[in-house]
Amino acid sequence: MPQTLSAIALNCTLKSDAKTKSSTDAMVAVLAEHFADHDVTLTETIRIAAHDVKWGVSSDEGKGDAWPAIREKILAADILIFGTPIWMGQPSSVAKLVLERMDAFLSETDDESRMPSYSKVAVFAIVGNEDGAHAVTAQLAQALNDVGWTIPAVAACYWVGEAMHGTDFQDLEHRPRKVTETAKMVAGNAAHLARLLKQAPYPG
Amino acid sequence: MPQTLSAIALNCTLKSDAKTKSSTDAMVAVLAEHFADHDVTLTETIRIAAHDVKWGVSSDEGKGDAWPAIREKILAADILIFGTPIWMGQPSSVAKLVLERMDAFLSETDDESRMPSYSKVAVFAIVGNEDGAHAVTAQLAQALNDVGWTIPAVAACYWVGEAMHGTDFQDLEHRPRKVTETAKMVAGNAAHLARLLKQAPYPG
Amino acid sequence: MPQTLSAIALNCTLKSDAKTKSSTDAMVAVLAEHFADHDVTLTETIRIAAHDVKWGVSSDEGKGDAWPAIREKILAADILIFGTPIWMGQPSSVAKLVLERMDAFLSETDDESRMPSYSKVAVFAIVGNEDGAHAVTAQLAQALNDVGWTIPAVAACYWVGEAMHGTDFQDLEHRPRKVTETAKMVAGNAAHLARLLKQAPYPG
Amino acid sequence: MPQTLSAIALNCTLKSDAKTKSSTDAMVAVLAEHFADHDVTLTETIRIAAHDVKWGVSSDEGKGDAWPAIREKILAADILIFGTPIWMGQPSSVAKLVLERMDAFLSETDDESRMPSYSKVAVFAIVGNEDGAHAVTAQLAQALNDVGWTIPAVAACYWVGEAMHGTDFQDLEHRPRKVTETAKMVAGNAAHLARLLKQAPYPG
Repeated sequence: MPQTLSAIALNCTLKSDAKTKSSTDAMVAVLAEHFADHDVTLTETIRIAAHDVKWGVSSDEGKGDAWPAIREKILAADILIFGTPIWMGQPSSVAKLVLERMDAFLSETDDESRMPSYSKVAVFAIVGNEDGAHAVTAQLAQALNDVGWTIPAVAACYWVGEAMHGTDFQDLEHRPRKVTETAKMVAGNAAHLARLLKQAPYPG
Repeated sequence: MPQTLSAIALNCTLKSDAKTKSSTDAMVAVLAEHFADHDVTLTETIRIAAHDVKWGVSSDEGKGDAWPAIREKILAADILIFGTPIWMGQPSSVAKLVLERMDAFLSETDDESRMPSYSKVAVFAIVGNEDGAHAVTAQLAQALNDVGWTIPAVAACYWVGEAMHGTDFQDLEHRPRKVTETAKMVAGNAAHLARLLKQAPYPG
Repeated sequence: MPQTLSAIALNCTLKSDAKTKSSTDAMVAVLAEHFADHDVTLTETIRIAAHDVKWGVSSDEGKGDAWPAIREKILAADILIFGTPIWMGQPSSVAKLVLERMDAFLSETDDESRMPSYSKVAVFAIVGNEDGAHAVTAQLAQALNDVGWTIPAVAACYWVGEAMHGTDFQDLEHRPRKVTETAKMVAGNAAHLARLLKQAPYPG
Repeated sequence: MPQTLSAIALNCTLKSDAKTKSSTDAMVAVLAEHFADHDVTLTETIRIAAHDVKWGVSSDEGKGDAWPAIREKILAADILIFGTPIWMGQPSSVAKLVLERMDAFLSETDDESRMPSYSKVAVFAIVGNEDGAHAVTAQLAQALNDVGWTIPAVAACYWVGEAMHGTDFQDLEHRPRKVTETAKMVAGNAAHLARLLKQAPYPG
């Protein structure tokens, strides 16, 4: 029987009220279903905008900063599901805030020069009314990889509508078949790779 | 009566046979219709892949290079309609080839330090099956602006389908209303700005 | 004698204490010097992180939101100097926050379908320790142009150090000659274009 | 003793004469040195522009197309070193051409829905006179990951000079220490991950 792995999800919606429904949550939920088929448990979805995460590039920006506790939860999981809406064809400002806080990993290496994110994998849950998923993937993949995350084959699960349309993913009547197929690939590949790296971490 | 202006279009499709239909041509045609309302005449659409444009960053890469003649036509027009399909969420390699050849403008300044593209405006005609229009806009706007082109308000006219769909713009039964509205804005703004800059070029 | 124009600068540093020195301010100051030569007055540099700008995509996110007052100042000026540091090769999260708030312009059109940003020009002041200026230019140009700003020829004034270096622009002993030359072009072109558009706005 | 792995490198310089020296080759050579320490042998560096690779998105564009033979070599290796110069802050048009040809992988899946690139890792060798390495990383990581490649922790080995400078990597008197450190990480992580995936491929 394969070892159970843990995943944590970040929802980088601009909606700070955690009770407001979010299409990003809906996409994370799709991935969580498929991760469950591979013995990966989603421990929590953290809505970043509901917490007081301070601007900065260190791991602790002082009094009242919500990041240190979130950072600890992220690093306790084997898999990161980075969820963000698309605004103006780009990742949300909240997503950028999270990436900037992870910049500190660069100087938090262990004796083998390994960042705290080493041997963990990251995948993406991306939603928008129209256009931008590949651009968001590019920015997330580059920034997360720069600070030590490994990107499994086909890491992006996304949905956007036709150009200049206004439908939200959470309001679709049926889950698009292509989204289901993609979620299956993303979860299967990520689970396999995270398991390999947990058993045999990068030596540094 | 306003002065008649000229526009030239580049079609950066990967299809080198100029007789093969192209969705990029279809989008250029939409813009041309609206430009006509503002006394702007589309003189020609150049299908770059049908010509032997050499790799390089100079204005003449030697024997057989089709670029010098194309470059001359581009610089004879007041407005550039840069048309490209989206591949992998990005501009086509043919589009990149054209941008690289324009890199030479940086060292082709006149006595007032003005590149040959100064006082001309560029707009974008972008089509894809799904996703990528904003990313393409970003890359075109940055690269063209770096080498001297001016970007009028709302310069991108685009269409993409829903995520992971395969419909081509040229096969749509009806022209989407949003595309018409955008084309109207793009053409109106570009014509206005090109006319201002023709009457009063950048002094350098 | 040419009409005096006004410019406003946004500093999207992550440093929320307005008394902390910022390389972005230093780059804005370079541009301001050259704008002065063209009768353009910098009225104010707003350090966004020092204000409580709320997450969102509307022009007023309610109680305590600092954006409405900032928005008014931006739209009172003829020229926008958008200043941002580079983090992880990308614009700062604060820059993204500002862009998202401008998304509201799309639905704030006048009777001629013109957004409030129409007939105003935007230029960029970008600094980083290493790499990322072109990527930041691409994202700013695309997002600002989408919401109605006009981009004059050569709109980006930037400095970054050699790959993986850590020097700050504000700590350089001498201003690089290339930065001076670029600032001269950016300011001259922006002033000329802003003046043309002020005299003859887009008809919409 | 660890299993010996093979790597293949693509040099996407615009210089089609394979005898012309290239900074991209110089960066590939740095990586090759460090890969050798991990029992990874660089079998060949293919200068794409020296071959007649046709425009297109299929795996065989017909008579005279050099891609099918190159494609076979790429898929015979365990690790792909994707080398490209930076032009206008972006990957070269030759790099884009290669990515487009790999688009065909999407429909070349085996009975377990796995693309031919599955269980192989890709890393990047990027050089430029100034600026653009992170933007190139973002585009390569997104496009290669979309078509099945796995991206190991810290996959980009790059060098660029100070803003607006013109020095070539191959002309540096000394190899920058930061480049050596990065090459060590890139090679070590890629070798480890490629070995894990060779022993235990994605199940699909």
